[in-house]
Amino acid sequence: MRSPIPDYLAEALLSVEADQSGQTADYIPELASADPDRLAVAMCTHDGRLYSQGDCDQAFSIQSISKPFVYALALADRGFDEVLEKVSVEPSGDAFNEISFEPGTGRPLNPMINAGAIAAHTLAGPRDATPTERTSRIIHGLSAFAGRQLTVDNGVYESEITTAYRNRALANMLRANEIIGGEPLEAVVGYTRQCSLLVTVEDLAMMAATLANRGVNPVTGAPVVPAPVVRQVLSVMATCGMYDGAGDWMTRVGIPAKSGVAGGLIGALPGQAGIATFSPRLDQHGNSVRGVDLFRRFTSDMGMHLMEVPPSGPSVVRGRRLLGAGKHAIQVVSLQGSIRFAGAERVLRELEDEPLTQKTVAISLVRVTTVGDVARRMLLEAVRRLTLDGHDVYLVDPDRVLPDPDPGEDGRVTVVASRDDIIERLKRSAT
Amino acid sequence: MRSPIPDYLAEALLSVEADQSGQTADYIPELASADPDRLAVAMCTHDGRLYSQGDCDQAFSIQSISKPFVYALALADRGFDEVLEKVSVEPSGDAFNEISFEPGTGRPLNPMINAGAIAAHTLAGPRDATPTERTSRIIHGLSAFAGRQLTVDNGVYESEITTAYRNRALANMLRANEIIGGEPLEAVVGYTRQCSLLVTVEDLAMMAATLANRGVNPVTGAPVVPAPVVRQVLSVMATCGMYDGAGDWMTRVGIPAKSGVAGGLIGALPGQAGIATFSPRLDQHGNSVRGVDLFRRFTSDMGMHLMEVPPSGPSVVRGRRLLGAGKHAIQVVSLQGSIRFAGAERVLRELEDEPLTQKTVAISLVRVTTVGDVARRMLLEAVRRLTLDGHDVYLVDPDRVLPDPDPGEDGRVTVVASRDDIIERLKRSAT
Amino acid sequence: MRSPIPDYLAEALLSVEADQSGQTADYIPELASADPDRLAVAMCTHDGRLYSQGDCDQAFSIQSISKPFVYALALADRGFDEVLEKVSVEPSGDAFNEISFEPGTGRPLNPMINAGAIAAHTLAGPRDATPTERTSRIIHGLSAFAGRQLTVDNGVYESEITTAYRNRALANMLRANEIIGGEPLEAVVGYTRQCSLLVTVEDLAMMAATLANRGVNPVTGAPVVPAPVVRQVLSVMATCGMYDGAGDWMTRVGIPAKSGVAGGLIGALPGQAGIATFSPRLDQHGNSVRGVDLFRRFTSDMGMHLMEVPPSGPSVVRGRRLLGAGKHAIQVVSLQGSIRFAGAERVLRELEDEPLTQKTVAISLVRVTTVGDVARRMLLEAVRRLTLDGHDVYLVDPDRVLPDPDPGEDGRVTVVASRDDIIERLKRSAT
Amino acid sequence: MRSPIPDYLAEALLSVEADQSGQTADYIPELASADPDRLAVAMCTHDGRLYSQGDCDQAFSIQSISKPFVYALALADRGFDEVLEKVSVEPSGDAFNEISFEPGTGRPLNPMINAGAIAAHTLAGPRDATPTERTSRIIHGLSAFAGRQLTVDNGVYESEITTAYRNRALANMLRANEIIGGEPLEAVVGYTRQCSLLVTVEDLAMMAATLANRGVNPVTGAPVVPAPVVRQVLSVMATCGMYDGAGDWMTRVGIPAKSGVAGGLIGALPGQAGIATFSPRLDQHGNSVRGVDLFRRFTSDMGMHLMEVPPSGPSVVRGRRLLGAGKHAIQVVSLQGSIRFAGAERVLRELEDEPLTQKTVAISLVRVTTVGDVARRMLLEAVRRLTLDGHDVYLVDPDRVLPDPDPGEDGRVTVVASRDDIIERLKRSAT
Repeated sequence: MRSPIPDYLAEALLSVEADQSGQTADYIPELASADPDRLAVAMCTHDGRLYSQGDCDQAFSIQSISKPFVYALALADRGFDEVLEKVSVEPSGDAFNEISFEPGTGRPLNPMINAGAIAAHTLAGPRDATPTERTSRIIHGLSAFAGRQLTVDNGVYESEITTAYRNRALANMLRANEIIGGEPLEAVVGYTRQCSLLVTVEDLAMMAATLANRGVNPVTGAPVVPAPVVRQVLSVMATCGMYDGAGDWMTRVGIPAKSGVAGGLIGALPGQAGIATFSPRLDQHGNSVRGVDLFRRFTSDMGMHLMEVPPSGPSVVRGRRLLGAGKHAIQVVSLQGSIRFAGAERVLRELEDEPLTQKTVAISLVRVTTVGDVARRMLLEAVRRLTLDGHDVYLVDPDRVLPDPDPGEDGRVTVVASRDDIIERLKRSAT
Repeated sequence: MRSPIPDYLAEALLSVEADQSGQTADYIPELASADPDRLAVAMCTHDGRLYSQGDCDQAFSIQSISKPFVYALALADRGFDEVLEKVSVEPSGDAFNEISFEPGTGRPLNPMINAGAIAAHTLAGPRDATPTERTSRIIHGLSAFAGRQLTVDNGVYESEITTAYRNRALANMLRANEIIGGEPLEAVVGYTRQCSLLVTVEDLAMMAATLANRGVNPVTGAPVVPAPVVRQVLSVMATCGMYDGAGDWMTRVGIPAKSGVAGGLIGALPGQAGIATFSPRLDQHGNSVRGVDLFRRFTSDMGMHLMEVPPSGPSVVRGRRLLGAGKHAIQVVSLQGSIRFAGAERVLRELEDEPLTQKTVAISLVRVTTVGDVARRMLLEAVRRLTLDGHDVYLVDPDRVLPDPDPGEDGRVTVVASRDDIIERLKRSAT
Repeated sequence: MRSPIPDYLAEALLSVEADQSGQTADYIPELASADPDRLAVAMCTHDGRLYSQGDCDQAFSIQSISKPFVYALALADRGFDEVLEKVSVEPSGDAFNEISFEPGTGRPLNPMINAGAIAAHTLAGPRDATPTERTSRIIHGLSAFAGRQLTVDNGVYESEITTAYRNRALANMLRANEIIGGEPLEAVVGYTRQCSLLVTVEDLAMMAATLANRGVNPVTGAPVVPAPVVRQVLSVMATCGMYDGAGDWMTRVGIPAKSGVAGGLIGALPGQAGIATFSPRLDQHGNSVRGVDLFRRFTSDMGMHLMEVPPSGPSVVRGRRLLGAGKHAIQVVSLQGSIRFAGAERVLRELEDEPLTQKTVAISLVRVTTVGDVARRMLLEAVRRLTLDGHDVYLVDPDRVLPDPDPGEDGRVTVVASRDDIIERLKRSAT
Repeated sequence: MRSPIPDYLAEALLSVEADQSGQTADYIPELASADPDRLAVAMCTHDGRLYSQGDCDQAFSIQSISKPFVYALALADRGFDEVLEKVSVEPSGDAFNEISFEPGTGRPLNPMINAGAIAAHTLAGPRDATPTERTSRIIHGLSAFAGRQLTVDNGVYESEITTAYRNRALANMLRANEIIGGEPLEAVVGYTRQCSLLVTVEDLAMMAATLANRGVNPVTGAPVVPAPVVRQVLSVMATCGMYDGAGDWMTRVGIPAKSGVAGGLIGALPGQAGIATFSPRLDQHGNSVRGVDLFRRFTSDMGMHLMEVPPSGPSVVRGRRLLGAGKHAIQVVSLQGSIRFAGAERVLRELEDEPLTQKTVAISLVRVTTVGDVARRMLLEAVRRLTLDGHDVYLVDPDRVLPDPDPGEDGRVTVVASRDDIIERLKRSAT
């Protein structure tokens, strides 16, 4: 069978292809001369399957899409405290109201605006890194996100650096506000290199998928940044990622995203996939016109809005039954599905509302696919309490979906592969 | 077994109890004279189980926590277009930079600031409702969210209305900007009534749980607002819900939330639960000091941050096996767990990568707990393509987790309760 | 001889008559329906001569031109301290950056914006005045400025009050900020009456001339407000008087001014004249298009820019001569012209640089027209010092241009009407 | 006689000497280490007399006080159009609301804020000047204002340039906004040199006096900038000169002024004097604490407020008399004092109200000290109209206070030195 996903993506491209509205960025010749009709999309699942359609081999400069990734590297390299002291996480509001620096502290408002991105650039790598080492750390880091070695487009770099007056202004303000040290021009040089890295939509989809996969590149398996960093980066993308209209994006699309002035746009769906589009014509906010349209379509077609409440499934408590009879009967509670907080709460609730009546009890995880960390702690607490209530507790967990099954002080549990094992053991112990 | 959840909540209260920082709101005597030491928490699961601890019977005025619910009613009553034309959804930024109205349109920036909330108030109910009918519609609507009849605290109402100069100013500006019609003072009267509704943390937890449950009150079962409205409301709460520091809240807590000046604070976890706290002392932003602390603790203890990427579970494709042998063998693909977009993609991928080789094939959903809407469409498309590839396709779905199994034009599928049914049928058709 | 001034004014009107750009204010029918072609100018000298041309009998509502006069009444009635505590004097900046209230204090930024004008309205009259008494005090006060009883246009008043939502918003904000007391709507009612007063350009020119004449109506002679109040009002008009572009007005026109939305525009030339124009079509800032043009022309034709440095005249020291000869000769220093600070300094300088050599000395003011207050004190100090140096000092001041000629402790001076009087006296004393 | 002015200035210094509030600027060591107790004042009259007291030989860096003078040079060198296209003239408002660049154009709001001053720096000298030539032109120009060669303090320059990050930021923003060309750093280098020029209060008083004297240095007689430039510069100083609180300064002091961070402060009184003070401790706005106090005292003691309306003098029309009798009598109108617009109007008025009755008429300017340009034109128009009315007109003007007495087409006038000359002439013509 041929997968319908490539067909879906191709059809999505077709639906926006005719839209020629918007303008390519024109502040440097390299961007102005880009072929405005290029159009591509790529999706990479959290476990590394890549789909792409359109001009997916076309390389373009990453520009502002580098910002969330470099922010991630800074958080990973310097820790949250040091980075938050230098760059805040507040939306900067619509253009009509734009302020770059927080009154009082002089911090850039967030790492998705240029001032914050330049500051984040200087926070990647160790504290004593030279500007060159810092830029090198960033290129390596972004390459790890993409799963292949990325390179700088020198033509773009040279063009941008000669007219980078606004970024030079920001870097000097950062220096005046004591947010960055050293010579401001060096920060601009490094930042401009970072923005000139060449990528394709496939690279971007892979980078976004690395965020969606808790910071681990789903193809190379390389751990690029730790999970708490990913949570922070996705949060900031959700509130500050699109140049303008953070609220409009959040309500209509609801996917943490970031756009670049060369026409790229990425979105990261936690636990599911990374998506990237490429189309150089930009709207008045500087976001790719057809890219924004594609994401709106994906949200609506694929139900990927963060605030989409999933439909309730059947109870995680599949049922109870007695194995055997009389005093030695084993009371089995069978669970099913993915168990997160709400599921575990349901288990606890049922154990309280309808107390187990046999001395020997078993919780069967045979039909359980995953147990979240919080749910794991809650289930083990239930085991501990059942022990304290005088029960002998078994956990039927053939696939070991509940790791490290230690119910803590006063709790006791025996993990077995099947219900038969319990009977076997009981028989053995009876003799 | 006694559930550990009440213990957890009691312990959480204990951990913040000693903190006496902050001040009760003092602009009206009713709020200033509130007992500042009151402390309560309640949690209501998406399926209606209510846990609470502390002063959970203490009634207090709902104040700004009414805003997201009235916004929901307005969206439900008038539709998205009419409401968005009058109230935008953009964050208003930090206090140092506060602007209430969008230049150009004169719309309030979002429905969580007073200007936007007053506008949303006037949009609840039918277009031709009198002010009294409108307020009545709102009281009924909020009561439906709470699952019991709420009443106005007349003392609070009287106090607030006599000093509501700032809200009168906002209502007059809304009238000048042609966002609201009629006499502005009437809008303020109704809005002040709305804010004076008495609630307990249990009411608030139930109201939040109604949002978490796609707009259906989990106890009464009443459909209060439709699912797309909930998505919109949660999105706006996520970006604009806390008085200040939207970015700080999003990164550190990551739960759509809303606070009120009487000390209430709610959070809604899509698909999981509603949480509410009550503690009257406020920080400089007007948010409950101990309430904010409790939510930070919940996020960290319960992994409830929206951007928390869940750990990957085992593949939804549990395995393949052949039933029977030779030409008439049935090739069965067994799925498991909750299937959303990423899971369905995985199924499609495997069907493409390792094509089915038998004419008769079966997809077994026996171990599947839920199938999301997008996943359902993807699986049915797979069925259609398998049909086109020449297969006879069976769906083993004893619990009917995949509703309305119509694979569309050219697709054909037979739903059965077990693998045995297939054999049965094949035998029959062979004869 | 017929004065050329009416011709000049008529010619000025002719030069702008053809300009039909701009729009009449349209927020109430009364203003929208004004004949847009009306055009008038009036000038009233500081001593009461009135010139006018065009539609000078056409009455229109005074609107914002009432603001500086009511601010003057408030300062006169309540004193500087009380008024400054409630209304600041800072420019509010261009429209793109408009803020009405000072952070921290909540004061309106200046009395020329609506918020400040409403506050000033409530500060006119005694502290315990009822709203009606207050409005009455203002109508009487503005009538005193104009030199005739002004009346409210009830049609304009009724129209404006029914749609005065923005002013109601401002009044409520003032009440919330504790800048005004009482019911905000009453302040708006009074303020709207104030703005609905009917005036002609001749009235306005007279009102401006009263400011130009130190607060005394040049025709009736009535002292309307004291001189320090006038200084304050003119300063505020200079920096905040025109709706936008205070800097543009100050550099290009350089006359303290105020415009009204009905098409009026006034300017006050300290010590010289009041000017008023009327032409209903407004530019984008809300200032009368042809009115602004006329004032630019007046500045350039009449050299009335405040920062115009007048050409130096001849020295105030006209010369020295000896009356008589030998020991009894009288040394006479003759002064001339208007003497202000710089002139008096010149006298002191010459007396120091070329010391008087005779015992008997005279300072002749025969050709002096005015002596400013500071100059008066400086000249008397010179007299005192000459006495201390051993001189017998005479002041020849037939017209008594130097009032109250007391040189203070240790000084002595004899005032005479002519040089002959000195000789006479000396002769008498010699005998 | 010893002039009391030095005593007055010494006494003024004494009155503020004890005030030790405020802080010296501390952003570079050179300023932080200045002796905070230094105190000096100087006043230079419009005709070049210099008075000074206190530490008047103490040199300090001119800093922002260079701004109005360099703006003047730019206007003189490039013309109003080119300079206004690059730098606006609007107040930038209080610090709480500070915006440096005009939305839309990107122009700095005025030449008194750093952004505008850097832009003005680049506009001094010819368009094709090198940065070095430009700086040299500025040093020469400021020296011409001061009447002696000024030099750069290299210690201050070196300190400032190494930490001039904020100015580098502004220069880069100006470059990005296309307000300046070339390398932004060069503009900062030149601007920093300009600010590092060493001056004393005597230099500053002389520079201010050059403005007060229509752009001509009152001691050297050198014309530094033309009069229209002075008018523009004084207007901008009046509205934007003090770092904050333009309105407060205008109402309370009312003198066009500029302060510098090294402790200098200047004021220019059009037509009268330039004043400068020096005291390094600054208030929160960056203005010299004791300097501001001294200026408030000067305004109040010397009546120098721009909006101070001078008291009316006697009429410029001193009287009428008949010389001779009968048909051949000469009707003489005697004028007196300084005649500006209002005085000339008075003459015209009287000639209209009480028409001259003799054929031969004379206007005597014997007691007139100055005739302003507008007044001159008005008097000549009167002469022309009298001619047209059939009069033979004489002008008695022994001191030629009315230059170029050409009454234009159809007018005729005979200028004589005395009334006797008229009789003489009449006699002659009669024969």
